[in-house]
Amino acid sequence: MNPSAGVPRITIAEAERYTGQSVRIAGWLYNLRKSGKIAFPLLRDGTGIIQCVAVKSALPEETFNAIRNLTQESSIIVSGKIRAEQRAPGGFEMDLEDIEVVQRVPEEHPYPITPKEHGIEFLMDHRHLWLRSRRQHAILKVRHEVIKAIRNFFDSNGFTLVDTPIFTPAACEGTTTLFEVDYFEDEKVYLTQSGQLYNEAAAMALGKVYCFGPTFRAEKSKTRRHLTEFWMVEPEMAYATLEDVKNLAEALVVFVVGRVLENRRQELEVLERDIAKLERIQAPFPRISYGQAIDILKSKGSEIEWGADFGNTDETILTEDQQRPLMVDRFPAGIKAFYFEPDSEHPEVVLGVDVLAPEGYGEIIGGGQRIHNLDLLVERLKAHNLPPEAFDWYLDLRRYGTVPHGGFGMGVERCVAWICGLEHVRETIGFPRMLYRTRP
Amino acid sequence: MNPSAGVPRITIAEAERYTGQSVRIAGWLYNLRKSGKIAFPLLRDGTGIIQCVAVKSALPEETFNAIRNLTQESSIIVSGKIRAEQRAPGGFEMDLEDIEVVQRVPEEHPYPITPKEHGIEFLMDHRHLWLRSRRQHAILKVRHEVIKAIRNFFDSNGFTLVDTPIFTPAACEGTTTLFEVDYFEDEKVYLTQSGQLYNEAAAMALGKVYCFGPTFRAEKSKTRRHLTEFWMVEPEMAYATLEDVKNLAEALVVFVVGRVLENRRQELEVLERDIAKLERIQAPFPRISYGQAIDILKSKGSEIEWGADFGNTDETILTEDQQRPLMVDRFPAGIKAFYFEPDSEHPEVVLGVDVLAPEGYGEIIGGGQRIHNLDLLVERLKAHNLPPEAFDWYLDLRRYGTVPHGGFGMGVERCVAWICGLEHVRETIGFPRMLYRTRP
Repeated sequence: MNPSAGVPRITIAEAERYTGQSVRIAGWLYNLRKSGKIAFPLLRDGTGIIQCVAVKSALPEETFNAIRNLTQESSIIVSGKIRAEQRAPGGFEMDLEDIEVVQRVPEEHPYPITPKEHGIEFLMDHRHLWLRSRRQHAILKVRHEVIKAIRNFFDSNGFTLVDTPIFTPAACEGTTTLFEVDYFEDEKVYLTQSGQLYNEAAAMALGKVYCFGPTFRAEKSKTRRHLTEFWMVEPEMAYATLEDVKNLAEALVVFVVGRVLENRRQELEVLERDIAKLERIQAPFPRISYGQAIDILKSKGSEIEWGADFGNTDETILTEDQQRPLMVDRFPAGIKAFYFEPDSEHPEVVLGVDVLAPEGYGEIIGGGQRIHNLDLLVERLKAHNLPPEAFDWYLDLRRYGTVPHGGFGMGVERCVAWICGLEHVRETIGFPRMLYRTRP
Repeated sequence: MNPSAGVPRITIAEAERYTGQSVRIAGWLYNLRKSGKIAFPLLRDGTGIIQCVAVKSALPEETFNAIRNLTQESSIIVSGKIRAEQRAPGGFEMDLEDIEVVQRVPEEHPYPITPKEHGIEFLMDHRHLWLRSRRQHAILKVRHEVIKAIRNFFDSNGFTLVDTPIFTPAACEGTTTLFEVDYFEDEKVYLTQSGQLYNEAAAMALGKVYCFGPTFRAEKSKTRRHLTEFWMVEPEMAYATLEDVKNLAEALVVFVVGRVLENRRQELEVLERDIAKLERIQAPFPRISYGQAIDILKSKGSEIEWGADFGNTDETILTEDQQRPLMVDRFPAGIKAFYFEPDSEHPEVVLGVDVLAPEGYGEIIGGGQRIHNLDLLVERLKAHNLPPEAFDWYLDLRRYGTVPHGGFGMGVERCVAWICGLEHVRETIGFPRMLYRTRP
């Protein structure tokens, strides 16, 4: 019945290899330009977009009419010959010979996302369909590349992946932003905010480890940097100092950006990203202390005082002259979690480091060296009003072969937003979860 | 002060490259044999275990005494020369020249896991320390290899990673086994049991996709196959049939087992795994229908009747004669979820497939072809007493360019348990979560 059933089915990404040959491609109608005698259906299949050329005089009337009457996002399988065409996006076109319409989207219920402008709420409500657009493809491909690069980096640098639990009894960074889950028979557990405490145990077993999974913050923030559910990679190293942590963070960021530039340049172009800015992401990154950062902020007119945490505006001011990520270390103990190792020379500051992305994208990495002395750690738990009993297993790590160690967390969504040059993190993940958004 | 500070610090895995050279290695004391004149500290550093040789006559008295007095899991940095030694595990020894004791575990509070046998509850309570054992290292390394292989398989076969949400408003497979979370202001969400519905949306956008993350089941089962939190990879393909799904599942399993055999043979030996059994995991896998499976079970004395789901015993009987994973397809519609495509020739069965691992390890993969016709899907939702309104966005996928499609889910922990030959899934993940276990 179908005269083209014998020809190979290929993807649009493979078109080049089949130049001059007859092939079939299964996909969806992305767009259609037409006149009385010729039609140009744009076909997308997830691997790319190809323009097909349907000439009335070369096709049975029925076939040409079926093509002319196609509606946006109708599912179709086209057959024809691949031809190199410099002017076409991608460099190839298909001379259409036959078409199988799998489902024609009816005019009465047309595809809701049209080429006209839509409001963001409408698009987010139709996220399951919005994912079909060229821009969303580009972002998701960059995200995939970022995740692949991160895993590749750690896998080839001697780190063992140890997935840390999502259900946790204890809170790592305070309890106000935790999501609570009813476990069985009146037990309560919380959704993880960080795998760090578990990572520390794993690092004492395996030397260098990382975890990489979703983490959760019940923050009532409605900013362009916040999701309630986001992915984070967290490496941890035994026998490591703040210096090692900083070097690792720097190497990771350089590697990830490099991989995206190498493999996803086309996607960055779709996103109209200024690629030159990414090409400048090379080691060494500028490194300053919190104290120096405060001085810079004051000299630029900020009213921040020593002891206060940076706000978004401070981060933007600090990075406005920077072309590379900025590393800020040695924060006042009071604004950091209980487990940070104090600086032996300046015990009022701790050996933490934040990495701030350029262009106002804010903190993408936070980490540092952890306290390895048992007594000091117990003292700090108490000072933070945390019950040492709840951390008994964690304290075991200081009882049995404790060593200096450290690590960091890098948020995937902020990293992708920065690399893609996006205003808001909501587009960096397939189905974002925010304060007022749990669907689709 | 430290005469060996200038020598390179290496890991045990790198020892071979440094044969004949003086190096430093930082790690923990795994074991210590000693006599009056010689001591053999076994050092572990997460990359391996190396035997050190400390000769009294060759060392300052203080150094030799420090070594003799070491306690299990004390953290130490040893310096000495690497020497090839065929009889040593790993093939290398270190002639110890100096030692820095970072922390000596005191005799009064010795490391709780001793070489004697411990009960499983004790070990699980000390999971954060148990991870330091050779056996747990082997399992975690295999797990890492399995996860790497899975991602590598999909990444190099044209699949795009699309992380699906953990917070979901709708249930994929019934609501009785869902964990409920308090979202903001009286909203309730559930923890995902499968990314499939989102995967279907992503597949219509990108052709071939996969998600890979933690999933949750609030099952009150206390079996050796159940965790409340486990990791699952789920591929989904547009323009695909049950046959494509089966071929993909087969290729994935062969690839993953092959990678473990290639890169983790030593770990399999630590686990005393029968490697010959894994070497037989080659395509093609035997493929039978549910109907044939019922006949086999009956012929072997089971009282199962057509229409019933397999129990663990049935799965064991079905696979007892098999050396390869067994694929069973075309199940009665009544025991499968609403979204399975019916078999056009036998509408009483649906196009689902389960892959059962050999050696009684049970189902490692479940999947199939999904319904792509809108009216049929609505009908099935109603038949399953599910409100079509709640699935409105999911139904959109059948309104706008619907195509035949399918995919599956593969559970990482069951897969690792099978490949490692473990009796219970609890050892396949760093910090398992079970009915009565949420700590450490």
